[in-house]
Amino acid sequence: MERTISPLERARLNYRPVPPRVFESGIAAVTLSEGKGTNSRSDDEVIRATFPDLFGAPSIRFEAGPEVVSRQPLTVGVVLSGGQAPGGHNVITGLYDALAGWHQDSSLVGFLAGPRGIFEANHRELTATEIDAHRNTGGFDLIGSGRDKVETSAQLAACRETCSRLGLDGLVVIGGDDSNTNAAVLAQYFVTHGQPTVVVGAPKTIDGDLKGGGIEASFGFDTATKVYGELIGNIERDARSAKKYWHFIKLMGRSASHVTLECALSTRPNIALIGEEVRARQWTLAQLTDHIAAVVRDRAAAGRSYGVCLVPEGLIEFLPEIGSLIKEINRLLAEGIEESSLAGRLTPACAAVFAGLPERIQDQLLLDRDSHGNVQVSRIDTEALLIETVRRRLSAWSATGDYGGKFQAQHHFFGYEGRCATPSNFDANYTSALGQVAALLVAHGRTGYVCCVGGLAAPPGDWTAGGIPLTSLMRMETRKGRPTPVIAKALVDLDGAPFKQFARYREVWKNEDAYVYPGPIQYFGPEEVTARTTETLQLESGEG
Amino acid sequence: MERTISPLERARLNYRPVPPRVFESGIAAVTLSEGKGTNSRSDDEVIRATFPDLFGAPSIRFEAGPEVVSRQPLTVGVVLSGGQAPGGHNVITGLYDALAGWHQDSSLVGFLAGPRGIFEANHRELTATEIDAHRNTGGFDLIGSGRDKVETSAQLAACRETCSRLGLDGLVVIGGDDSNTNAAVLAQYFVTHGQPTVVVGAPKTIDGDLKGGGIEASFGFDTATKVYGELIGNIERDARSAKKYWHFIKLMGRSASHVTLECALSTRPNIALIGEEVRARQWTLAQLTDHIAAVVRDRAAAGRSYGVCLVPEGLIEFLPEIGSLIKEINRLLAEGIEESSLAGRLTPACAAVFAGLPERIQDQLLLDRDSHGNVQVSRIDTEALLIETVRRRLSAWSATGDYGGKFQAQHHFFGYEGRCATPSNFDANYTSALGQVAALLVAHGRTGYVCCVGGLAAPPGDWTAGGIPLTSLMRMETRKGRPTPVIAKALVDLDGAPFKQFARYREVWKNEDAYVYPGPIQYFGPEEVTARTTETLQLESGEG
Repeated sequence: MERTISPLERARLNYRPVPPRVFESGIAAVTLSEGKGTNSRSDDEVIRATFPDLFGAPSIRFEAGPEVVSRQPLTVGVVLSGGQAPGGHNVITGLYDALAGWHQDSSLVGFLAGPRGIFEANHRELTATEIDAHRNTGGFDLIGSGRDKVETSAQLAACRETCSRLGLDGLVVIGGDDSNTNAAVLAQYFVTHGQPTVVVGAPKTIDGDLKGGGIEASFGFDTATKVYGELIGNIERDARSAKKYWHFIKLMGRSASHVTLECALSTRPNIALIGEEVRARQWTLAQLTDHIAAVVRDRAAAGRSYGVCLVPEGLIEFLPEIGSLIKEINRLLAEGIEESSLAGRLTPACAAVFAGLPERIQDQLLLDRDSHGNVQVSRIDTEALLIETVRRRLSAWSATGDYGGKFQAQHHFFGYEGRCATPSNFDANYTSALGQVAALLVAHGRTGYVCCVGGLAAPPGDWTAGGIPLTSLMRMETRKGRPTPVIAKALVDLDGAPFKQFARYREVWKNEDAYVYPGPIQYFGPEEVTARTTETLQLESGEG
Repeated sequence: MERTISPLERARLNYRPVPPRVFESGIAAVTLSEGKGTNSRSDDEVIRATFPDLFGAPSIRFEAGPEVVSRQPLTVGVVLSGGQAPGGHNVITGLYDALAGWHQDSSLVGFLAGPRGIFEANHRELTATEIDAHRNTGGFDLIGSGRDKVETSAQLAACRETCSRLGLDGLVVIGGDDSNTNAAVLAQYFVTHGQPTVVVGAPKTIDGDLKGGGIEASFGFDTATKVYGELIGNIERDARSAKKYWHFIKLMGRSASHVTLECALSTRPNIALIGEEVRARQWTLAQLTDHIAAVVRDRAAAGRSYGVCLVPEGLIEFLPEIGSLIKEINRLLAEGIEESSLAGRLTPACAAVFAGLPERIQDQLLLDRDSHGNVQVSRIDTEALLIETVRRRLSAWSATGDYGGKFQAQHHFFGYEGRCATPSNFDANYTSALGQVAALLVAHGRTGYVCCVGGLAAPPGDWTAGGIPLTSLMRMETRKGRPTPVIAKALVDLDGAPFKQFARYREVWKNEDAYVYPGPIQYFGPEEVTARTTETLQLESGEG
């Protein structure tokens, strides 16, 4: 049975992404120019030793030029890795179109259900019909995704075998920091073992923590934060209309708080907690509670018994005492201690922290496990925890006459609502351009690169296209107890323009209702509405 | 400090709602034609006795006609009553524009923070500047809202005093079933006491349960269900992409399941529970659990360990054994039994039901109280309860080898996300027309009417305009222990076209991924995208 599609999905299938001007005459009329050689973020020598054939390669820029006349058909594989992000399909359609424009006999193979599809040789050649059915759509359902990495020697060898058998000229890995690190491993392995397949990465993640060093933004961040911004704005308007509730809204983003920061900048809530700041200042749960409760109290005194507080998903780990507690529980679990006797085995300091937590949070700490047997931080209801601790604090203040209001709270968690949204025009254009860049990197035989499209705060026609070596994003970090070369996650920079803008205005936002209601993503209509980029991007490019 | 507004909000301020053709030359060029006299839904004699001056009045239709030349300025009051719904501001702007078109010296007074604003004489004349700043915006923040009713004789007398002092020709009550019932009470009181203020109602509620008898839809339902539909569609696409989670999504709508039904029709989830059906079939929690668990099992057997299940907010009350339990707890609480000894005082049947519930739900039943001291049904995590009971059932099936899958679930609750959304073009046009009708009813001195705009499945130019007596929507119901004339809530009709459509296809939706992704509301662009009405409206008008 053919799937029924909505009027909007149908309209979006016909959208033609706006290409950077350099690609206007097709990717064959483009020349490659090399920039300077590169280093790593740090630990150059170790990274050079691990990636001897990739390290130090120059940055690359594509520029309009004479048509490359002698072109061979290209066979390229593509894989989606990790969590969904709006625009994933358009990297694939952009790649497909570029390959077809390069040579009509080119072909694109999709690896199914993530990187496992490469070493298990689970793949399918993508047809024009299915490509056309996925243009500008959300989701990763065209070929699926997965969280597996290519890790063991057997898996690496199996990947090589698959790429060799398919005769792949290129392999495009669409993923986040870990997946792009994995792409570098694969690229080096292929060179070492004489496998000619070029491996390139495309920067994906709604979390926004894969950026810097030539990557201005990961795709999906724009769309996802706009969906969350729509909802936060609607809730702000509700709070101000009903004058009854405090809304605590948890937002996806476990390691970095870019999503929360962007949403704060676009909606101006009364409070937004930034994990990186909490860590830097070593705020405890008690201090954070005091901080929030004071805002609730002051607003109530001004007749405003309502408000909105944004909470990043990963906040709880950033609180020093809770972080220590989680570490201790994980250690005890690893030692094989039964859940039922865990609480009794905690050190006095951690036991005191544990005892102060609401029962439901205690249960979540003791009972919810991830696949490695660790405390499952993402399942902890941080937003409900804060409501509870704030409620207790306000009760104490009521008893001493320091608070006379009524605290009623609602909590929300937005994450899954935005990961598969229909990509904004920005993300549709950006990802299509990334796919074209990927095709070019393959055509020019440049392995171990990540696709870069730059100047993103400007209109798409003005965007630049190029690539940087994956090794240039790397440094050594401890993973599973040993030093490992990885692409470092970009955390919120407390000296960066977005955080400074937030810090400049948040005192005003606390007490006044400075709410901004962004409304839903618009795909048609006035340009100031449809082409609005993120506040983060504008501020980081100096245009905010 | 002037509030910063988003580019979309700015663009919407300039939107001109499309009027029904009958209003094209302004409301002065309109004549009133009377239809037949009306009865009540039932209990005619009691309702006639309660509303002797309103009962039996004819339905009214406005039609294009010669200009009324002798026009006096009108002074009208307007009040928002109850929960937010998208379009409330446009009833006010439509009313304002119509009054200004009727006579340039007309004025509009806003009562602040709900009906209490009338009897407490808390009001403000609305200026052109603030009207212009709220065109086509969501929220009720222009004048606020409240849940108070005008009930006591003192309040009724105070309302009369306010209207008299302000010299109000009309009072427009924008609200749901209870608020419109209250409008009828006020209208009759004014007639009885010689107060010439005309009282008219406008049908508001995102729940969609104020309809029938000439009202085709309450405003706000269109926008709110589209916001929820956007989010459900995004989650469906995520479920299908990640192939990992079952998402249980609770939707606002405590008494009626129209919102859930509409969202089911527009997004085609695997399961949607309809409260009215559960009640009609007297399904128990155990049966419902079996039903859901069987779908999870069958999909897992087909390799689909994911899915989406919609749950109406009021579901839990519709389950006979839980309904009985809640009633018994409320009775015991009313008898003054302490919460700590409640569980021990339950009848054996209810005690058994209670014992079978997860601890968290037990707590919510015992501890969360509404302002009347009753169990706060809306705070019960029905979606989490179902996840828990389904998980237990699947575990039992695993033990006997009847289920081999892995059940991972996420839960969501969508309500506040949609109540204050920027109104869709439909709701913006509809509410503006309702405001014009309200002005006309006042101009023509017709008290005790609710504004009706009809033919809503057609383009706005073709819509009809008129009114029906509020008494024609009434019947007797028991409220606070005594028979009371009320506007009956319109529940989902299991013989109606929307439910029948759902029932026809739901077996297919269970097992296949028939998901439809509506995407966000579009205010600009192709008409098939921007002018899409609800499935409910299309089906009820025979155009589905």
